[in-house]
Amino acid sequence: MSKKAVILYSGGLDSTTCLAIAKAEGFEPYAMSFSYGQRHSVELELAKKNAGTVGAIDHMVVEFDYRKIGGSALTSDIDVPKEGVGNNIPVTYVPARNTIFLSFALGWAEVLGAFDIFIGVNALDYSGYPDCRPEYIAAFEQMANLATKAAVEGKGHFTIHTPLIHLTKAEIIGKGVALGVDYGRTHSCYDPTPEGIACGLCDSCRLRLKGFAEAGVTDPIRYAVKGEK
Amino acid sequence: MSKKAVILYSGGLDSTTCLAIAKAEGFEPYAMSFSYGQRHSVELELAKKNAGTVGAIDHMVVEFDYRKIGGSALTSDIDVPKEGVGNNIPVTYVPARNTIFLSFALGWAEVLGAFDIFIGVNALDYSGYPDCRPEYIAAFEQMANLATKAAVEGKGHFTIHTPLIHLTKAEIIGKGVALGVDYGRTHSCYDPTPEGIACGLCDSCRLRLKGFAEAGVTDPIRYAVKGEK
Repeated sequence: MSKKAVILYSGGLDSTTCLAIAKAEGFEPYAMSFSYGQRHSVELELAKKNAGTVGAIDHMVVEFDYRKIGGSALTSDIDVPKEGVGNNIPVTYVPARNTIFLSFALGWAEVLGAFDIFIGVNALDYSGYPDCRPEYIAAFEQMANLATKAAVEGKGHFTIHTPLIHLTKAEIIGKGVALGVDYGRTHSCYDPTPEGIACGLCDSCRLRLKGFAEAGVTDPIRYAVKGEK
Repeated sequence: MSKKAVILYSGGLDSTTCLAIAKAEGFEPYAMSFSYGQRHSVELELAKKNAGTVGAIDHMVVEFDYRKIGGSALTSDIDVPKEGVGNNIPVTYVPARNTIFLSFALGWAEVLGAFDIFIGVNALDYSGYPDCRPEYIAAFEQMANLATKAAVEGKGHFTIHTPLIHLTKAEIIGKGVALGVDYGRTHSCYDPTPEGIACGLCDSCRLRLKGFAEAGVTDPIRYAVKGEK
């Protein structure tokens, strides 16, 4: 039996792999993306172009302007750091972003009659964001089951699936390749060139490049330059 | 010492009272409203007009289109019920609405350096929405303290304040009157006339009318008709 699931889908490497995993597990993927004033809107354009190709039944793009709220290099004039991945939570952190994304996913899931939500967070090769950790996801799931009519009326139990959470970037890529993911159709850069080419130097590019190197797979996308982690 | 707090502010009776309480407790109120395709947009217009008058330092209006997601009489073509308050969760329930609202409030609070969020939910004279109950609020608060850089780095602990949660509508009105709230500047109807006059028959109007009657206070706003609870 196939079941509906909402997949948070940015068009990037992680969420595209996440969608492929949901599909492989027998879920009907309903992809959800966000246009929130992010600097890397080329990612969203690719998400719109590729959602059907990667197997989404439907693709919902929710628009809101996070630049009004600010507080992040991804949505404001703060420069995206290019010096390599550090030990602190970086300025690319967007306050409450995954909480907002998961909240919209929860609303859509409830309307669809779905109880499964997939998010491609990763607590290993990641940038240190607090809202990527297992304890955060568990707390969100608990809250979701108290928040919603569907759960409170006993129609089901919401589960937040995080299939990538304990994988290295190389393992994610290996899994995606095994599932036939075309990584040429994914984009991960926080600060692409005006032509949409990945910078190669932001945290996201560095983590991606390192992952492909470790997986022994050639990254099919183009980079302006290639930074070391 | 005055402290910043984000107040979810719809311009309605409950949230206006909630803002007055936050102010009386010594907080600097930062009001946050949402334009999400709600049927009762007259409420939002009043919120914009009155935020400064009621004492908000700043007023942020977040816009997104919940009609895409649907699932509620407040955002779709489903009729708003007018038969009186029932025992089930009604069709005016908006899936995950308070979760989405609180998530945005959490993001803004983090950017402002605030750790206090006020929401005027009520678990007594209410419509039976699951996301108005104390156990839901407690779960959101726990999640918020795991979600955010500010909390994880130990800069403070987020508190979701619900000063109205155990009050009757009459007690809320009594409290507001004591704090000088001008209820002529508030609006609560789910389905106002094109002229912006309260219908008098939806759950929200009925609960409001009953509250004023029980408080022994005259409701200063106009109604098309006045329904009994």
